[in-house]
Amino acid sequence: MKQYRKELWFEIKTRREFINITSEINICLDESGIKEGLLLCNAMHITASVFINDDENGLHQDFEVWLEGLAPEKPHSRYKHNSYEDNADAHLKRTIMGREVVVAVTKGKLDFGPWEQIFYGEFDGKRKKRVLVKIIGE
Amino acid sequence: MKQYRKELWFEIKTRREFINITSEINICLDESGIKEGLLLCNAMHITASVFINDDENGLHQDFEVWLEGLAPEKPHSRYKHNSYEDNADAHLKRTIMGREVVVAVTKGKLDFGPWEQIFYGEFDGKRKKRVLVKIIGE
Amino acid sequence: MKQYRKELWFEIKTRREFINITSEINICLDESGIKEGLLLCNAMHITASVFINDDENGLHQDFEVWLEGLAPEKPHSRYKHNSYEDNADAHLKRTIMGREVVVAVTKGKLDFGPWEQIFYGEFDGKRKKRVLVKIIGE
Repeated sequence: MKQYRKELWFEIKTRREFINITSEINICLDESGIKEGLLLCNAMHITASVFINDDENGLHQDFEVWLEGLAPEKPHSRYKHNSYEDNADAHLKRTIMGREVVVAVTKGKLDFGPWEQIFYGEFDGKRKKRVLVKIIGE
Repeated sequence: MKQYRKELWFEIKTRREFINITSEINICLDESGIKEGLLLCNAMHITASVFINDDENGLHQDFEVWLEGLAPEKPHSRYKHNSYEDNADAHLKRTIMGREVVVAVTKGKLDFGPWEQIFYGEFDGKRKKRVLVKIIGE
Repeated sequence: MKQYRKELWFEIKTRREFINITSEINICLDESGIKEGLLLCNAMHITASVFINDDENGLHQDFEVWLEGLAPEKPHSRYKHNSYEDNADAHLKRTIMGREVVVAVTKGKLDFGPWEQIFYGEFDGKRKKRVLVKIIGE
């Protein structure tokens, strides 16, 4: 069994943003030399997500509005977590969008359908944060 | 390490439906010959889900009503994604229900609790769509 | 390839509760002797979750209030699933929080960011229920 590990670092300038990281994940997979196996990609922070969806700007705006409806940022005082913090909504939004994805690796490629792309979802940015890529297989 | 891959195809006649695919996944696992490992099953489309829950018709009706409440289909114009499409709600519903499941394989069986069943969740049907099954182990 | 399997049992005294199970998962990982691989931890019941977030009591109270807002327990009659049951809300809450987590194992440790902790989320307690830990690697 072969294994590969890499951290991808981000410093998003705004509180919330979605970044397509598929090309960086493809580089990881090439570096690993793994042809058949499973790839795990997860946010290492609990106010961020890794998820798979469409790279379409209108949809990303819909996600922003929708998540604000389900877990509003403000008033910060609406959340008990926010006595010393202001990011409770980010924990909730990340819960909706998910911490991680597991992707099949087949013949050395991400085994994806036609529109699948991997995104980093930042919900409490303006600081350095990390994503983990772990691949096992052979 | 052994590996197995199969695509399962669906053509749902309605926009939304839940299909129990556990028996098809069991056939995949038997075909693989893998006794110990991990099984990944994911929708290959970004408007569909694979999830684990109860095979109970009342609950599935509850899911339909609940998801329509959280991410209503109409009016289509409420979503920016819907300038050329009408399926933004399907992207959101799939986000709630999840893209994938990872299941332990133990002694050649899906290592499930008493009521766990695997479902394909279609949110934008009336077309051919695929689910991927990937198993690694030995 | 090495593999390890263990069931963790819980009997929560209330209907809903979050339990930090990270130390028990660490014991599993030590027992497995696996240094590099993937760890799957999933609820074996469809009204419970395993998820990763922050071990902060205020946040857990926020989760409780938020989930009750998204999928209220009562009146039980609001759900079709509740003709013989009263736990439809627990199926929905578990869907939001997730069935499973997949965690990278690196150098014999859970490969976690600074605040990541694994929780068992009970949404229909007062009975014995199980979590599965499966680890593969070498």
